[in-house]
Amino acid sequence: MSEIRQDPTTKEWVIIARERSKRPNDFIHRQPKPELPSFSPSCPFCPGNEAMTPPDSFALRGKDKKWLIRVFPNHFPALTPDGTTNRREESGFFLAMDGKGIHEVIVETPQHNAPLALADESRVLNLLLTFQKRYIALRQMPFLKLILVFQNHGASAGTSLEHPHSQLVATPVVPRHIRIRHEIAVQYYDDTGRSLYSDIVDHELKAGDRIVMATDKFTVFHPFASHSPFETWILPRTCQASFSSASTEDIKGLADVLRTTLLKLYRGLNNPDYNFILDGAPIGDENRDYYPWHIRIIPRLTEVAGFEIGTGIYINTALPEETAKFMREFKAE
Amino acid sequence: MSEIRQDPTTKEWVIIARERSKRPNDFIHRQPKPELPSFSPSCPFCPGNEAMTPPDSFALRGKDKKWLIRVFPNHFPALTPDGTTNRREESGFFLAMDGKGIHEVIVETPQHNAPLALADESRVLNLLLTFQKRYIALRQMPFLKLILVFQNHGASAGTSLEHPHSQLVATPVVPRHIRIRHEIAVQYYDDTGRSLYSDIVDHELKAGDRIVMATDKFTVFHPFASHSPFETWILPRTCQASFSSASTEDIKGLADVLRTTLLKLYRGLNNPDYNFILDGAPIGDENRDYYPWHIRIIPRLTEVAGFEIGTGIYINTALPEETAKFMREFKAE
Repeated sequence: MSEIRQDPTTKEWVIIARERSKRPNDFIHRQPKPELPSFSPSCPFCPGNEAMTPPDSFALRGKDKKWLIRVFPNHFPALTPDGTTNRREESGFFLAMDGKGIHEVIVETPQHNAPLALADESRVLNLLLTFQKRYIALRQMPFLKLILVFQNHGASAGTSLEHPHSQLVATPVVPRHIRIRHEIAVQYYDDTGRSLYSDIVDHELKAGDRIVMATDKFTVFHPFASHSPFETWILPRTCQASFSSASTEDIKGLADVLRTTLLKLYRGLNNPDYNFILDGAPIGDENRDYYPWHIRIIPRLTEVAGFEIGTGIYINTALPEETAKFMREFKAE
Repeated sequence: MSEIRQDPTTKEWVIIARERSKRPNDFIHRQPKPELPSFSPSCPFCPGNEAMTPPDSFALRGKDKKWLIRVFPNHFPALTPDGTTNRREESGFFLAMDGKGIHEVIVETPQHNAPLALADESRVLNLLLTFQKRYIALRQMPFLKLILVFQNHGASAGTSLEHPHSQLVATPVVPRHIRIRHEIAVQYYDDTGRSLYSDIVDHELKAGDRIVMATDKFTVFHPFASHSPFETWILPRTCQASFSSASTEDIKGLADVLRTTLLKLYRGLNNPDYNFILDGAPIGDENRDYYPWHIRIIPRLTEVAGFEIGTGIYINTALPEETAKFMREFKAE
């Protein structure tokens, strides 16, 4: 019999389908991806091609003054800083507004073929510090309500350019998706006097069988109600609402576990496509007892189908206890 | 500048990204799919191979007594009728329950290579009547709370078997996904005294530019806040909460518009992968002024990426007004 589990952060159900369940080994990517060159003349993110992109909003440079990380507005932005946040009625009924916001690209390395999973700790640290710099700069803009940083790795994760890059989108609205999570966490706090996310970490640590790794600052685990195989969460032990509040010491600790987590996924599943998401509370609603900043990594190993689209209930064909054990025991280096 | 539009059924926002926007023509599938045989000896859904599947729960037979449509429990079910609906605590914190429910397969035709989009009207009608028969039979089971019928067409829509088939999943819980839509519709009714979904149809008809086709009974349109290119909704003019209440006359009218809609998609976009979803109100919460049964067709033309997973805000790279015009004007036969 399968099991239906509730995601405590959304109250949504997930079906853990034992009858269909696969072993962790079944998810290893069998077809190696084509090798990439370290420089591609036509790539707009490769050094020397900076004119193919908008000018930098930020760059981290090495001792030789060459850039290590570049940040600039997306050339095909989903949102731009123009316009207003006024809502307007269309056709006398529907609600719309200008696509006002920020959409930036963060080129993570000059090297075309150097995925983040194979980066050394200083590169991961520099990238996370860059994310934080942009968080801190953008949260001053009064029309922004949420900042999300994400990385799409591989074609099935929705990327069109293979050069390692992340993106930052800052929206002028708080999405319902976040509001719902925030409201559930506030209700939990009102009922218990405790942070929902801290309690999740405590109970995951107590159960132990879904933990990939844990340090004194961070817990990496496959959540009880994982939506898809190898879904991975990284939560700080001390919750903070906004990534802009994380100390450099925190970020060093995060760089360490993130690097290991990505390397384990890369080596253990043979470079799977994945989405990496760093989110947190809406700007201004930053009570650390409610919705903390955290990281989710979603390997793209299965397809969402009609049932998931129609009900929001995901069918997960892997047991988080088994996938976490696989990752916990996998020696990546 | 792009536009942010609100989906009135979820209050969620969608970014209509004009800067990234593509013409309807850009979505035509360029690589023809491989031709399939009309019979495949190894296919469990082909005639003669009935022993490879569980026994029928229903079959529609022709004059020669051979089956035209077969319904049987999924061999790899996400949910089964065993167990209880009692919630239990796991690790002293998390909520879980037995995977109790129904998961059926509906083989739509004996012919291995006959997609629904190319079916004649009587086959589409028979299929919809079969859906309704199973709805009516299953809604008697007291532990079921929601019945969803769906079809996954093509590998990127999540199907593993190419023989034309739909699936029915009946769940012992009301998903939050549906609860939220239901609550928004109830609130709308309380505020206005009208059905949200009827009002959407009225305003779409008044605007006109997102309509694909309209009859006296059904409206086919690309919604104002379409989440992805060519997202298509079919809504009845007279709302009913459950598909089990639809009259045979209604279903005949639906067969007519569904066949034309699928054929237009098939010919217009060159047989795209898609998900078809038929849902309605939770069993027992069936006030027709709130959440009506309806059909959504989601062609799988783009990938969901980190931004969508992290915020629930979809970035749609096509204008629903342009894709609806393309479909409205496309002559499929």
